[in-house]
Amino acid sequence: PLIAILPGDGIGPEVTAEARRVLDALDLGLDYEEAPVGGAAYFSDGHPLPARTLEVAKRADALLFGAVGDPRCDNLERHLRPEQAILGLRKELELFANLRPARLFPGLEDASALKPEVAGAIDMVIIRELNGDVYFGEKGMRTTASGRREGYDIMSYNEDEVARIARVGFETARVRNKKLCSVDKANVLETSQLWRDVVIEVSAEFPDIELTHMYVDNAAMQLVRNPGQFDVIVTGNLFGDILSDQASMCAGSIGMLPSAALNGSGKGLYEPIHGSAPDIAGQGKANPCATILSAAMLLRYSLGMDAAADRIEAAVTAALVSGARTPDLGGSLTTREMGDAVLKALA
Amino acid sequence: PLIAILPGDGIGPEVTAEARRVLDALDLGLDYEEAPVGGAAYFSDGHPLPARTLEVAKRADALLFGAVGDPRCDNLERHLRPEQAILGLRKELELFANLRPARLFPGLEDASALKPEVAGAIDMVIIRELNGDVYFGEKGMRTTASGRREGYDIMSYNEDEVARIARVGFETARVRNKKLCSVDKANVLETSQLWRDVVIEVSAEFPDIELTHMYVDNAAMQLVRNPGQFDVIVTGNLFGDILSDQASMCAGSIGMLPSAALNGSGKGLYEPIHGSAPDIAGQGKANPCATILSAAMLLRYSLGMDAAADRIEAAVTAALVSGARTPDLGGSLTTREMGDAVLKALA
Ligand SMILES: CC(C)[C@H](C(=O)O)[C@@H](O)C(=O)O
Ligand SMILES: CC(C)[C@H](C(=O)O)[C@@H](O)C(=O)O
Repeated sequence: PLIAILPGDGIGPEVTAEARRVLDALDLGLDYEEAPVGGAAYFSDGHPLPARTLEVAKRADALLFGAVGDPRCDNLERHLRPEQAILGLRKELELFANLRPARLFPGLEDASALKPEVAGAIDMVIIRELNGDVYFGEKGMRTTASGRREGYDIMSYNEDEVARIARVGFETARVRNKKLCSVDKANVLETSQLWRDVVIEVSAEFPDIELTHMYVDNAAMQLVRNPGQFDVIVTGNLFGDILSDQASMCAGSIGMLPSAALNGSGKGLYEPIHGSAPDIAGQGKANPCATILSAAMLLRYSLGMDAAADRIEAAVTAALVSGARTPDLGGSLTTREMGDAVLKALA
Repeated sequence: PLIAILPGDGIGPEVTAEARRVLDALDLGLDYEEAPVGGAAYFSDGHPLPARTLEVAKRADALLFGAVGDPRCDNLERHLRPEQAILGLRKELELFANLRPARLFPGLEDASALKPEVAGAIDMVIIRELNGDVYFGEKGMRTTASGRREGYDIMSYNEDEVARIARVGFETARVRNKKLCSVDKANVLETSQLWRDVVIEVSAEFPDIELTHMYVDNAAMQLVRNPGQFDVIVTGNLFGDILSDQASMCAGSIGMLPSAALNGSGKGLYEPIHGSAPDIAGQGKANPCATILSAAMLLRYSLGMDAAADRIEAAVTAALVSGARTPDLGGSLTTREMGDAVLKALA
């Protein structure tokens, strides 16, 4: 199988290098092709998602992605900014289902701003829709009747888009604790009303799953008050952007959390949930665990190599238990040394 | 001055009654007129915001609002649901500026799910725009070219709408710690790009205020990680709905937090941030403090009675310090007894 490696910006290259070492150590017969993306690609190729990168991405069986974001690109036109690379890949490869597990790792109870007994109960997956919503609707600047500048973005979902992500939600709940919470703002938005109607329709296919609905403002409160109440959350692109980051921070160390963006046939893009962290780039301070765990998700979801994925996840846990810590976890290991610790646990 | 009292649903009548007792005790020469709103108004008058209620609201100098929301209305058409009353009042009275203070009250450090040292640092005001955004744009259900149901809502802001709420943000920061953080999603939304451009333009009028910008997903993380970093946040209607509820929950007891919704000439609607809590309605279990503190905001912002507002706020703090606690704060006082405790502290 072919893995496209897209290191991207900032700490992206450092953390993907460690994930690649871990994959190599497992001797799974993987092929790799690396390509530039984000700000790095803008500077090398003039575009954050160059044609040659998209070509590799389409050809690959799965993508391992570092991070994009570069302050030197802040004043570029929107279509040239690094973030467009990830939005473009999601759309071009139809990666509509974002899986964002959030849980507290053993020994890291203190890393969360939440009380240990609250944070310790966190073990959830947020399923975020990635191909629709106000992200991809018509948008632009226009002038009002009275000659004033106005920005607009159309939010929308159709029933097929909602049904396919709802099914991912129900199926994810089925292999966990069988509880699905759908988050919307149906008391205000028609998009949310359609969302809620369709989720309820789809629920007929999953009579064994307990479905609840929550308004997004309440969900933001409950994720602070008692995040342990959630098993699987399914929500739209915009609410998912906000709530999944919030949930990650509730769990503490964002340097530990992986994510997957899947299409309908098992292909996926895997990336740490953290950003490019330009302030510490190139200094060996970044925690590679989130990317290593993203590689584990890649093996599990795109290549069906569950045993290898289990081994990586166990090795990361073992490394933590043995006391291995990068600076974000209060330790002093470098990125490479943390990778070494995981490799050692793997052996 | 005339105060319109709109008790609404659930615990609304109980908590507004206590706030009214506190106002009465101060002997400020206020007149009151009460009118139905929300589910209560739907059952009495056939509409959540009856013409007679709107008439009183328009005539009054300020509005004291309880809460709306009634599960018996869940299946009504959208325009008849209780929530439409608050949306209608915001729009009809042009109440565009929502002021949501969030802070931790002395003695209530344990009420927050955040660690005491994190929660204890919370002292911020979120300024949420209330008259625009995806809340009030064109919305509806339509059919796609392939015959599928689709829900849509148009998000938009024009420069005048952004400028007037930005000014409220800067002015609020000016009387606090002179730090304003504007929250948007300018990396994805054109509405946010216009928002950011205009906030920057307006900042020229306030050279003494330090302006920063944050994406909404990052803001949701920072509100968990280190909420003490914020002084004043200004944001749009949808992001403000989510973040202000999140911030309130970070501060702990949502039974303690008031809010104001102001128009351009000092008129305002004042309400506790909590909802109608139908599960405990009529049982004397609700905490009236959020509504009592909303009455204090009313005196301060709509009537210019700062000394009276100060007295109420000091009395609530004193009542807490003396150990007065409703069930939500771990105590056993009834709504009325908590009102008594505040009245006693006032005397
Ligand atoms: C970079 C940005 C466009 C992106 C998003 O909003 O989806 C990011 O926040 C994410 O969650 O992956
Ligand atoms: C009831 C609902 C329409 C309302 C809103 O979304 O504005 C509420 O959540 C609030 O924040 O006042």
